[in-house]
Amino acid sequence: MGLRAEIICIGDELLTGGTVETNSAEIGRFLRRRGVAVRRAVSVADSLAAIVGALREATEVDLCVITGGLGPTSDDLTSSAVAKAAGVDCGRLAEAVAEVEAALARRGHELDPIQLRQAEVPVGAALILNPVGIAPGFALEIEGRLVVALPGVPAEMRSMLDSVAELCAEHFVKKGWSGEPRARQIFRCFGLREAAIVALVEPVFAELGLVGEASVGIHYRAAGPEVDLTVDVEELEIADAAALEARLREALGEALYGLGEAGLAVRIAECLKAHGLTLATAESCTGGRVAAAMTGIAGVSACFHGGIVAYHNGIKEKVLGIPAEVLETHGAVSEPVARGMADGVRAALEGHADLGVGITGIAGPGGGSEAKPVGTVDIAVSDGEASHYRRFLFRGDRSAIQRDATAWALWMVFQRLRERGLSSVDLVD
Amino acid sequence: MGLRAEIICIGDELLTGGTVETNSAEIGRFLRRRGVAVRRAVSVADSLAAIVGALREATEVDLCVITGGLGPTSDDLTSSAVAKAAGVDCGRLAEAVAEVEAALARRGHELDPIQLRQAEVPVGAALILNPVGIAPGFALEIEGRLVVALPGVPAEMRSMLDSVAELCAEHFVKKGWSGEPRARQIFRCFGLREAAIVALVEPVFAELGLVGEASVGIHYRAAGPEVDLTVDVEELEIADAAALEARLREALGEALYGLGEAGLAVRIAECLKAHGLTLATAESCTGGRVAAAMTGIAGVSACFHGGIVAYHNGIKEKVLGIPAEVLETHGAVSEPVARGMADGVRAALEGHADLGVGITGIAGPGGGSEAKPVGTVDIAVSDGEASHYRRFLFRGDRSAIQRDATAWALWMVFQRLRERGLSSVDLVD
Repeated sequence: MGLRAEIICIGDELLTGGTVETNSAEIGRFLRRRGVAVRRAVSVADSLAAIVGALREATEVDLCVITGGLGPTSDDLTSSAVAKAAGVDCGRLAEAVAEVEAALARRGHELDPIQLRQAEVPVGAALILNPVGIAPGFALEIEGRLVVALPGVPAEMRSMLDSVAELCAEHFVKKGWSGEPRARQIFRCFGLREAAIVALVEPVFAELGLVGEASVGIHYRAAGPEVDLTVDVEELEIADAAALEARLREALGEALYGLGEAGLAVRIAECLKAHGLTLATAESCTGGRVAAAMTGIAGVSACFHGGIVAYHNGIKEKVLGIPAEVLETHGAVSEPVARGMADGVRAALEGHADLGVGITGIAGPGGGSEAKPVGTVDIAVSDGEASHYRRFLFRGDRSAIQRDATAWALWMVFQRLRERGLSSVDLVD
Repeated sequence: MGLRAEIICIGDELLTGGTVETNSAEIGRFLRRRGVAVRRAVSVADSLAAIVGALREATEVDLCVITGGLGPTSDDLTSSAVAKAAGVDCGRLAEAVAEVEAALARRGHELDPIQLRQAEVPVGAALILNPVGIAPGFALEIEGRLVVALPGVPAEMRSMLDSVAELCAEHFVKKGWSGEPRARQIFRCFGLREAAIVALVEPVFAELGLVGEASVGIHYRAAGPEVDLTVDVEELEIADAAALEARLREALGEALYGLGEAGLAVRIAECLKAHGLTLATAESCTGGRVAAAMTGIAGVSACFHGGIVAYHNGIKEKVLGIPAEVLETHGAVSEPVARGMADGVRAALEGHADLGVGITGIAGPGGGSEAKPVGTVDIAVSDGEASHYRRFLFRGDRSAIQRDATAWALWMVFQRLRERGLSSVDLVD
């Protein structure tokens, strides 16, 4: 039995562009891994009517996860809204008061009476402890649905998800829920347009008779130069799923860089670590984003020692050793400068990074010319044996250009590792 | 007359954690600036029933913006769903075919028949050109509501928003819509908990008689160490709004770093540029995130020349000039190392950055000890005249620690600029 869930995120700032709502993606991932399908995620304003309305609309689900609106301010209305939807009162729970006091004491803060607003929960609700922040969460059954309220601060919400899984076990295991995810295969691809991926894989599904009546779920996700293909294989026999995987790997060829959830940076780190190699970054227009992608990975220090953000030409010259005349003759966005950055950063940091990647370009909105319009980005990868270079012309605004340049820089590093026979597309996670 | 809108985002990946949905925040910001209030944002799966259901539920709004599901793959269903909701057929529009062909030709790609799926729109719909990608959008009136469908790729969606504004003008100006935003004041604060901000500002609202019957809308948004306070002042006389602003500025004191939408990095860049100063970054545990925050700003090259990602101690020693014995005696996460990084990076790059910031810490999940647990971060700011240092203990997981450390590093730079009398909280945007 698969559970169905709805996520309700509360906060004016989610609707006026003040905050990008990241909780539903995180909760969705957490629940999917436990066989819970999120049917819908709704963001509503800090309004009693809007929250109650969203709760009332969330029918046909087993679980309803609310985030936000549990703080101490006058626009924090989740407790009142859940109480109203449940037809109960809201009251100060002694256990919740103790939690708020303890959380403040751990920080060495005195209790401000305003903080006690966070101890008010619907009557009958069970408390959910908050190991990171101050506001506790709560859970309440309303008309057969389990309604769970968590804080909106992502780190606090995240720290409470295991408690949500425990609550689900208490409620749903007896009803036949296993907590196991639906079986699926994820194929991560790079550098081909979505339509090109479709053209490669649709014949495979047709050939294996997996379209029409006996169809499997096929989902595409495009994000810049990346396309993920996800196939629900729950309905397939194990041998058929294995045959499908083999045929799709063949069809996708070089565009496929990995199976499973691991992204390019994780793939690169796994590969570098497995072969005792290190990478260094020299970034101009990406301004630290490639380094940030690498350092987002736990344990990356074994293979990533650091990088240079060489935004200014003086740094390209002084730190990365690119001769002033090269910068003058060719310009900062040029093949010799990109190659020089990739080479230079290998020696610049500690004298021994195995691979270097250099990125120089025009992220805009200013700085473009007819010969080198905004979006022109030169990327080079060097490892002492070979130096690969490529010029790109990215579209979109500054942030899109920076994001695409970051992705392609990682891809060129991965491609060099693959060329050396060091990479693998097999599952790492 | 204010318009009301709903945003519907389409894609399985939004519900299973594959993608963080950023379009609704961006559309919300765009619409808010034009006096359109987003009442709700809904993410649904790639399912005809789910999309049609969401469209049917979006009543009591004037405008419905859909993103996603316009691509060429079998799970792209937006055109069919809008057609179904409108009770019309879907057909291939000659104008749309020409657009798809032209977009492919601009890229030097041949037309793949699969791409023509993107030229199928509901009968009667008006085409919206896509300057960045291939799939065109469309607009259609359904039961008095203007329904607009845009691609899900953020850069493409973004490039089409001005067309949406034009469509709104065509539809709603005659009905009394002005396109002007609702008047509001934003107070951006740093370093105080939300409850502490509440305690500072609630007496001001009470004193000015702005609670209860004559209340103004007051909204709080907490994100890590940042709290924004937004006040809807549309109902106030200009003199009253000015008095409120003056009193809130006074009440918030040093915690207030700016009025309006500009974040800390923009504030710092404005201030550096106004005084002809430059900043350099030396990052260990933040791994390039401070540099990335600065280089996200257009035109930042005038005040930000670059930085060092010194993840490995060898880089701290060789590039930033921190003696090996200091690293050995005190450890990489220590006051002398943080101060040495901030000092060292000023000279390391081109010999003349006016300010340097150094960040060293333990982002986890490994690497902690009893004396320096995971979350311990040392930050220093130096400008030759003074060197300020502070130790933090951040909570949460690796990404939360990296994010908080980045925010506090920017804050310490801002504080030093303020100490020198160089900063301003007045509007810059």
